Amino acid sequence: MTKPLNVGTIGYGFMGKAHSNAYAKVNHFFDLQYRPILKAICARSADKAKAFAENWGYESIEIDWRKLVERKDIDLIDICTPNNTHAEIAIAAAKTGKMILCEKPLAMNGPEGLRMVETVEKAKVPNMVWYNYRRVPAVTLAKQLIDEGRLGRIFHYRAKFLQDWTINPELPQGGTALWRLDAATAGSGVTGDLLAHCIDTALWLNGRLDSVNAMTETFVKERKHNLTGKVEKVGIDDAAIFMGRFHNGSLASFESTRYARGHKALYTFEINGEHASIFWDLHDLHRLQYFDHRDQGIVRGWRSIHVTDGDHPYMGNWWVPGLQIGYEHSFVHQVADFLKGLETGKPAMPDFRDAYRTQLVLDAILDSAKNGRWVQVGQG
Amino acid sequence: MTKPLNVGTIGYGFMGKAHSNAYAKVNHFFDLQYRPILKAICARSADKAKAFAENWGYESIEIDWRKLVERKDIDLIDICTPNNTHAEIAIAAAKTGKMILCEKPLAMNGPEGLRMVETVEKAKVPNMVWYNYRRVPAVTLAKQLIDEGRLGRIFHYRAKFLQDWTINPELPQGGTALWRLDAATAGSGVTGDLLAHCIDTALWLNGRLDSVNAMTETFVKERKHNLTGKVEKVGIDDAAIFMGRFHNGSLASFESTRYARGHKALYTFEINGEHASIFWDLHDLHRLQYFDHRDQGIVRGWRSIHVTDGDHPYMGNWWVPGLQIGYEHSFVHQVADFLKGLETGKPAMPDFRDAYRTQLVLDAILDSAKNGRWVQVGQG
Amino acid sequence: MTKPLNVGTIGYGFMGKAHSNAYAKVNHFFDLQYRPILKAICARSADKAKAFAENWGYESIEIDWRKLVERKDIDLIDICTPNNTHAEIAIAAAKTGKMILCEKPLAMNGPEGLRMVETVEKAKVPNMVWYNYRRVPAVTLAKQLIDEGRLGRIFHYRAKFLQDWTINPELPQGGTALWRLDAATAGSGVTGDLLAHCIDTALWLNGRLDSVNAMTETFVKERKHNLTGKVEKVGIDDAAIFMGRFHNGSLASFESTRYARGHKALYTFEINGEHASIFWDLHDLHRLQYFDHRDQGIVRGWRSIHVTDGDHPYMGNWWVPGLQIGYEHSFVHQVADFLKGLETGKPAMPDFRDAYRTQLVLDAILDSAKNGRWVQVGQG
Amino acid sequence: MTKPLNVGTIGYGFMGKAHSNAYAKVNHFFDLQYRPILKAICARSADKAKAFAENWGYESIEIDWRKLVERKDIDLIDICTPNNTHAEIAIAAAKTGKMILCEKPLAMNGPEGLRMVETVEKAKVPNMVWYNYRRVPAVTLAKQLIDEGRLGRIFHYRAKFLQDWTINPELPQGGTALWRLDAATAGSGVTGDLLAHCIDTALWLNGRLDSVNAMTETFVKERKHNLTGKVEKVGIDDAAIFMGRFHNGSLASFESTRYARGHKALYTFEINGEHASIFWDLHDLHRLQYFDHRDQGIVRGWRSIHVTDGDHPYMGNWWVPGLQIGYEHSFVHQVADFLKGLETGKPAMPDFRDAYRTQLVLDAILDSAKNGRWVQVGQG
Repeated sequence: MTKPLNVGTIGYGFMGKAHSNAYAKVNHFFDLQYRPILKAICARSADKAKAFAENWGYESIEIDWRKLVERKDIDLIDICTPNNTHAEIAIAAAKTGKMILCEKPLAMNGPEGLRMVETVEKAKVPNMVWYNYRRVPAVTLAKQLIDEGRLGRIFHYRAKFLQDWTINPELPQGGTALWRLDAATAGSGVTGDLLAHCIDTALWLNGRLDSVNAMTETFVKERKHNLTGKVEKVGIDDAAIFMGRFHNGSLASFESTRYARGHKALYTFEINGEHASIFWDLHDLHRLQYFDHRDQGIVRGWRSIHVTDGDHPYMGNWWVPGLQIGYEHSFVHQVADFLKGLETGKPAMPDFRDAYRTQLVLDAILDSAKNGRWVQVGQG
Repeated sequence: MTKPLNVGTIGYGFMGKAHSNAYAKVNHFFDLQYRPILKAICARSADKAKAFAENWGYESIEIDWRKLVERKDIDLIDICTPNNTHAEIAIAAAKTGKMILCEKPLAMNGPEGLRMVETVEKAKVPNMVWYNYRRVPAVTLAKQLIDEGRLGRIFHYRAKFLQDWTINPELPQGGTALWRLDAATAGSGVTGDLLAHCIDTALWLNGRLDSVNAMTETFVKERKHNLTGKVEKVGIDDAAIFMGRFHNGSLASFESTRYARGHKALYTFEINGEHASIFWDLHDLHRLQYFDHRDQGIVRGWRSIHVTDGDHPYMGNWWVPGLQIGYEHSFVHQVADFLKGLETGKPAMPDFRDAYRTQLVLDAILDSAKNGRWVQVGQG
Repeated sequence: MTKPLNVGTIGYGFMGKAHSNAYAKVNHFFDLQYRPILKAICARSADKAKAFAENWGYESIEIDWRKLVERKDIDLIDICTPNNTHAEIAIAAAKTGKMILCEKPLAMNGPEGLRMVETVEKAKVPNMVWYNYRRVPAVTLAKQLIDEGRLGRIFHYRAKFLQDWTINPELPQGGTALWRLDAATAGSGVTGDLLAHCIDTALWLNGRLDSVNAMTETFVKERKHNLTGKVEKVGIDDAAIFMGRFHNGSLASFESTRYARGHKALYTFEINGEHASIFWDLHDLHRLQYFDHRDQGIVRGWRSIHVTDGDHPYMGNWWVPGLQIGYEHSFVHQVADFLKGLETGKPAMPDFRDAYRTQLVLDAILDSAKNGRWVQVGQG
Repeated sequence: MTKPLNVGTIGYGFMGKAHSNAYAKVNHFFDLQYRPILKAICARSADKAKAFAENWGYESIEIDWRKLVERKDIDLIDICTPNNTHAEIAIAAAKTGKMILCEKPLAMNGPEGLRMVETVEKAKVPNMVWYNYRRVPAVTLAKQLIDEGRLGRIFHYRAKFLQDWTINPELPQGGTALWRLDAATAGSGVTGDLLAHCIDTALWLNGRLDSVNAMTETFVKERKHNLTGKVEKVGIDDAAIFMGRFHNGSLASFESTRYARGHKALYTFEINGEHASIFWDLHDLHRLQYFDHRDQGIVRGWRSIHVTDGDHPYMGNWWVPGLQIGYEHSFVHQVADFLKGLETGKPAMPDFRDAYRTQLVLDAILDSAKNGRWVQVGQG
């Protein structure tokens, strides 16, 4: 029999939906001791909380996250709210001994992130951050290939995250739907939203990043603000590019933007090693491109691996070879690994400290872009 | 509030899992009056039924489908069992007034299918067959483009379904896992298993098929039979190829096999019209390739449509543009459409009669292959 | 020093240009004893012959091919004229002891082809037919991989040649530019024009084809004839599909058409063997797709081989890795191999007899399509 | 009748071959008043010059380029020698009134380039630099689309040139074959060799680049030197990355390396505009990827344009739609445009001044990388 794990979710937006779906599905496909129970959904609007609860089968609602955090019948707090609320909620939840799953980026900046890390570590509560792309099976396979040493010495790591949804200058900033365009709520623009994903994956696959040199740009300088109704200066970065050096000697080349017409969510990364190279692309997330120079010369070529076989990461739990899974499954895998971590005592990553290291890179990027110079990355 | 619809599922295999997942998820993503309730799972083994029930949340189990069919608290019977059992179960279920969802192919052959059609039509029970690929969003989009008349006169329709999982001659036939290799249980090989999907899609997209000329082959002539333990003649077709004529004057070119090394589930179709062409591929099911000759000459090219935008079929119910869904979602869509059909009184297709028409094409193919001649397709 | 080989080319059209380019280039890139000299160009129009001679550096012109064939200073006759003239010219040229390179298809039909074969064999003159696609490096590489036994037992061979240039019903038939639409001149439509290429490659890569079952279609039944000025019945096949059996037990699936909107010259073939599969596509002719099941499972995938390395067939003679060659180079390679064959005494293929075997398949296809039945392929 | 233009080529290596091929072919495919005559080939080794002359049909040889430059029967000097010789030869040739075609990069650095520019401009001799990729038809088509204003405001320009041929640390530096690894001869590594191409294209397509911030890396610090026989420090950059700002407000993101395993000559660029985006890739040089947001939403997608139609740039001069050309044709186009420029009096670009602007970007990159700071690009 499975043990119930009572989840209290804060936020009913895109991520509230993605996480709830993961909790609802995970035990159908993974053999685990724990079973998440959708105990409470928390939102400032009672109507919206009720509707969400009914749809997803949450047993109760809260309209004040502080109440939720205090509830004895909740084991785990899942933070799906805008970036500027993560720290306060997480710290409060840790103090009541709750496990915490927090949306990315961890915090508004490094120092805030450090406080969160120290609190959860002191409280000894299980904690994790939703950098979900690690658990796309093709990305996990990349990690496996790297860990097996197949690539040899690494020369290059390049990543991009390209979108095009904010090109229209009439799009306002701020409010429930568009808080990502409001610097006060989001902290930064593409750096915290998109580059954060790229960096989490990079640190995981390629190790520590020592230094960066960045530039950012805000293409649309003013937008109407949804909360004030006035045209206001845009404080976020619309695009960010950086180069850098990894501790292993490889060069970093990163870029993200919301002004790349034709790309919706084109997160790609490529790693070039002495012996082999790897490429992945979120738009075809079920494939991994792999080139191995040790293949015989005349038949050497980039292999398009359709990551749907039973011996590919996570895929034995799903359908049959050839049948692809999608975006949402990365969240299911993350919950599965988190629960497995509770079973085994080996926590699933990235935890708050791991996500804090990503935060330090984000800080270095913004610093470098502001000051036009190379910046050493703080190491957490 | 939603109305409960009590489901009794027969079979806990791959399809039992795919359907159960669809029932469990559909209301989370689609706004519907009806809500499927996982009332009972039926399997010959009580242990397996119990384990499946626990995992998926079925409220009860049965070990005899006849008992399930008789239960008053069941609204809908879902048949996920091997092909040779469809008719008997469906006919019994129809007689007790149950709605019926039946796995494909509908029957072992046309005459058997016709008895099923006549029974459900007489009983006036809602009925549908799980030709799920119609509801991959890219395929539904293809249908929409065709219905809008964008292609003009159609010249060619070609489809393939290529797999490679039975190349090993040591693979046995028959039994729970390998009943698809046993002619007595499956009726045919790739014709009923794979071509059936291609034909369902083709009849839907391109209309009636008038005549066919087919060949089949059994590459591995003998395999050990799991039920008898003896090496026995293989009765199924390992590969089937046919050409034909559609009623609209276009030419058909179809092929399926389980001996195409390198392809796991490569279902593809292409339609060439006077003005435009369409191509789709199950290995990248979230994309539709579209060529429109009316585009200006110098920028004319095949468009790779990433079918993940909010105005693409079904996609407004899922995530955000750029984030792909997978195989399992086609089943969720089918349940959603079935339930919507109950609401609106406009039944979702394909119903038994529609699937019977596919069965008649399968019969014509097998007849043609056996006799080496053109065969007129019966029209149901 | 190189030995001159005096070439007399008949026809200044597309193929006259492609061959002349090959003669002009071949010694720049291949180390050969013989050097083709552009001695004479023959065309019915003296003006056109002169203009072509000036442009390409032909030393002389002829307006009657019979005169050219009689000239003592000509070593090799290259036949680039419409299909219905091949036999008469080739037979005359053989009788005067000329080497002969003839455009494909060899003849209007098998019996005519046989007469050509018998004449050149009796005359013992070097002879070859311009099935140029064998010498696209990726195709030659496919041959090499097959000959090394990498594929194991072959199950499937499928090929397509899809074009879209005759969809417009206002396009007339006949005359210099459109003789391919005129059955009296071309013999057949896509069968002799496009399937002929597919069959030549197939016989080379996969061996003898034993039997075929075909269908053809003429979508536009009447077109204005350029020679008569009247609307006349169209005698050619616009599309042809056939299935068949190779002598090695593999199944054939072939299709060609000029009504596949979006495809200009999409010649593709795929071979599925027990261990490995190969795919090639004329639209990206510099790549070969290769799947080898013996690769380790987790990194198994279709390899996209960029056939531009120095150890790939012919490529050591061109540029550097990564830099692709194009369509025209297949003709250069064919001339190079022909000349090398003269040096070594091992004639380059396909010779007339080899091309006659292709002709017998074409005859079988047209017979089968006409009579709606399986036809045994004659073996030459 | 065409007018002869006597060419004296200096250098018989890869580029000597590519240019000679272009001179030999251009009049076969382009209707031009001028016809290049292969008058003299110059190389320090008389044997090699003779062999090359015989192979390509050069009428004479020289072993001292100063003699060649003085010859009255030479109209045009083509410089195909290593970078450190360009300036001296070009300046001498200009002084004798010769037209000059010079391999890229123009010079070892900006000041040297400026002297070359001033000399040719003073001498009023036609001059051009072999940045051949502008004349790949797909790239020229990109220029055409941009000039038509289809992209709207430009946000991003990114380019890469990735190779993998120097990963092996046993590869020596210097000498005839490997002068590109020797800083004294090449001036720089990938910056002058590969980025130079990317920058030429970028300035042409996207206008002036105002500022850059770069990093470079030498992965293999020491290699045996072919001239000294000793292990020596490697002076070139193995990899270079830079970000920057174009004058039109768009952001630059560039990278080149010879350590990207799996890529032979992967030159790619992508331009993201307000309305449309463009992508091109040298490994499939015959295709242009184009996304136009003004396409109707449900059928919007990246178009893969097979740039082989008669109305595509240059393609009307070659074969028929669907049949691709290759790398070498870019040189033929460049000669054709140069000759057409002589006819019309509108010189083909890039001339020395244009190439000098590229040189100034190269200087800025090397300066920035050395000093770790943003650098303003000099404008020539």
